[in-house]
Amino acid sequence: AFEASYHVLAKELLDELANSYKMPKEGVERMRAMLDHNVCGGKMNRGLAVVDTILILAQAQGRTPTQEELFRAHVAGWAIEWLQASFLVADDIMDQSHTRRGKPCWFRVEDVGLSAVNDALILEAHLFKFIKTHFRSQPYYADLVDLLHEVAYLTELGQLIDMLTAPEDKVDLTRFSLDRHSYIVLHKTAYYSFYLSVAMALLMAGITDERAFQQAKAILLPMGEYFQVQDDYLDAFADPAVLGKIGTDIEDNKCSWLINSALAKCSPAQRAVLEANYGRKDAKCIAAVKQIYRDLELERAFHEYEAASYQRIHALIDGIDLSLGVPKEVYVSFMNKVYKRSK
Amino acid sequence: AFEASYHVLAKELLDELANSYKMPKEGVERMRAMLDHNVCGGKMNRGLAVVDTILILAQAQGRTPTQEELFRAHVAGWAIEWLQASFLVADDIMDQSHTRRGKPCWFRVEDVGLSAVNDALILEAHLFKFIKTHFRSQPYYADLVDLLHEVAYLTELGQLIDMLTAPEDKVDLTRFSLDRHSYIVLHKTAYYSFYLSVAMALLMAGITDERAFQQAKAILLPMGEYFQVQDDYLDAFADPAVLGKIGTDIEDNKCSWLINSALAKCSPAQRAVLEANYGRKDAKCIAAVKQIYRDLELERAFHEYEAASYQRIHALIDGIDLSLGVPKEVYVSFMNKVYKRSK
Ligand SMILES: [Mg+2]
Ligand SMILES: [Mg+2]
Ligand SMILES: [Mg+2]
Ligand SMILES: [Mg+2]
Ligand SMILES: [Mg+2]
Ligand SMILES: [Mg+2]
Repeated sequence: AFEASYHVLAKELLDELANSYKMPKEGVERMRAMLDHNVCGGKMNRGLAVVDTILILAQAQGRTPTQEELFRAHVAGWAIEWLQASFLVADDIMDQSHTRRGKPCWFRVEDVGLSAVNDALILEAHLFKFIKTHFRSQPYYADLVDLLHEVAYLTELGQLIDMLTAPEDKVDLTRFSLDRHSYIVLHKTAYYSFYLSVAMALLMAGITDERAFQQAKAILLPMGEYFQVQDDYLDAFADPAVLGKIGTDIEDNKCSWLINSALAKCSPAQRAVLEANYGRKDAKCIAAVKQIYRDLELERAFHEYEAASYQRIHALIDGIDLSLGVPKEVYVSFMNKVYKRSK
Repeated sequence: AFEASYHVLAKELLDELANSYKMPKEGVERMRAMLDHNVCGGKMNRGLAVVDTILILAQAQGRTPTQEELFRAHVAGWAIEWLQASFLVADDIMDQSHTRRGKPCWFRVEDVGLSAVNDALILEAHLFKFIKTHFRSQPYYADLVDLLHEVAYLTELGQLIDMLTAPEDKVDLTRFSLDRHSYIVLHKTAYYSFYLSVAMALLMAGITDERAFQQAKAILLPMGEYFQVQDDYLDAFADPAVLGKIGTDIEDNKCSWLINSALAKCSPAQRAVLEANYGRKDAKCIAAVKQIYRDLELERAFHEYEAASYQRIHALIDGIDLSLGVPKEVYVSFMNKVYKRSK
């Protein structure tokens, strides 16, 4: 059902281009291909989380959402998916990546190239377009637009610091630190992947108390940070057959939790090995870095981090102020999806 | 005074990054350099037009704008300048250009490279950020944000069609036509460079009648189209010493008014010369194309187009419905800036 709403929104946008904007046919077809390549085909976790949260909030209010409210929940969910598509198109260009979700990156597709930069801008414009179509008459419309702008900005700030810290072409481990990792992950991932879904749902449920939003941040931002740490861990330690891809963080000079944890624990000799081998596209270099990860027992360190994070967030959820109208289940449902995944 | 407001806004954004967003110092410094490189140094026509229009509208209402209103007019003007900076950073990447406003293009600056893609997104985020800071309590805030989104989208659609029509690396004159030129120019230039300034000023003056906005479009969009035709004309025919740069539209395969006018008038033999020489970085090829432009008397054609356009817009201004609260002077002041410029 959620996927069906993608087609409704894509059709709306494409029909409007052909009719109101009088766009030449080849432009409309190119737009269709761009949407199908970039917006579809993900796990849709972020979009679905909006819908789940809306349902839990409605239940807590003793209501069943109307068909209209349910469709708006889908639209809000797809706004996050469109926003993510915009970021991924741009990120793949900047990282000069090759594949994404099992397909070539959009800018690598024939006849696309750097015009993908404009597509990243268009994808962002699209979501404000359909948010306007479906939410303009809601009393929280301006708050919703402000929220989307703010979260997009935070994500772009994280991306900026990520690129300053770990440029695609220049390895310099002195820029790395666990603090820097935490800043990047919070901004680049946690806000849009975790906080945004719930914050949109709160607005749509008519919750206006600023404390409800602060509480959502207090729980979901550390959860988002954990999610990315786990992602970084799996990149090096998961079975590629289970993960569905071969991790490339080491050769790609990524500012990952593993390299930052290693730098925090290593001896001067081990550091020299890391400096000599990190960020190089060479199997021997990758193996040397992984050996240090094993020597430093980072697998165990991750499991300790995971257990501590789980306990901390569990305690936060247990202590929430229920008078704000958000039941624990909103956060518990996130937690169940995120902890102990294997891919 | 208008320029001073740039520094106020840039300081606001940078201080907020350092304080509220706890951004590492090198990130703030990089952001400062990015703003100074890309937002400043233009002619500021678009931004200043907002201020001019606000002043004319206030005078027509028999009021003197307060200091606060005047500052908000500056903020609105800078929003357009920031939007343009975002487009120019992105456009230069996509066109693989070398210089802009007498400096290297931002993505060509050392240590910037493709991270400029994210800077284009950030520049757009910035303007919504400071529009929120300074307009959130105004009754027209949502309309202002909607307007900025709509015009950004229109511009991106024009950019898309421009790139489909005249890709940087593939010359195919069968895609060109005067209609296509007109579509591109209307979307890519006229909305944000002409209509947007006045539409923002109308909102700020409390004008809500949709007919006032339609009237502004009816006059300013053809004026914007003329402006771009003139720009295309000057690229090939102006004295580079007066223009301040050497035109490169012919070698860059630009979908310009001149090539489209030539294609509409030329003989099969002339068309063959154009096909063989357009879009090539070779002085002989450029000379061959210019010779056809001269043989087809495009200089005269431009002056005829200019005279007809002037008359038409003059008539439109003469016939405006003054009851909508917008005096002719708003449009006359634009006209005086645009017609018969030599650079
Ligand atoms: Mg990437
Ligand atoms: Mg990246
Ligand atoms: Mg990863
Ligand atoms: Mg260009
Ligand atoms: Mg261009
Ligand atoms: Mg030009």
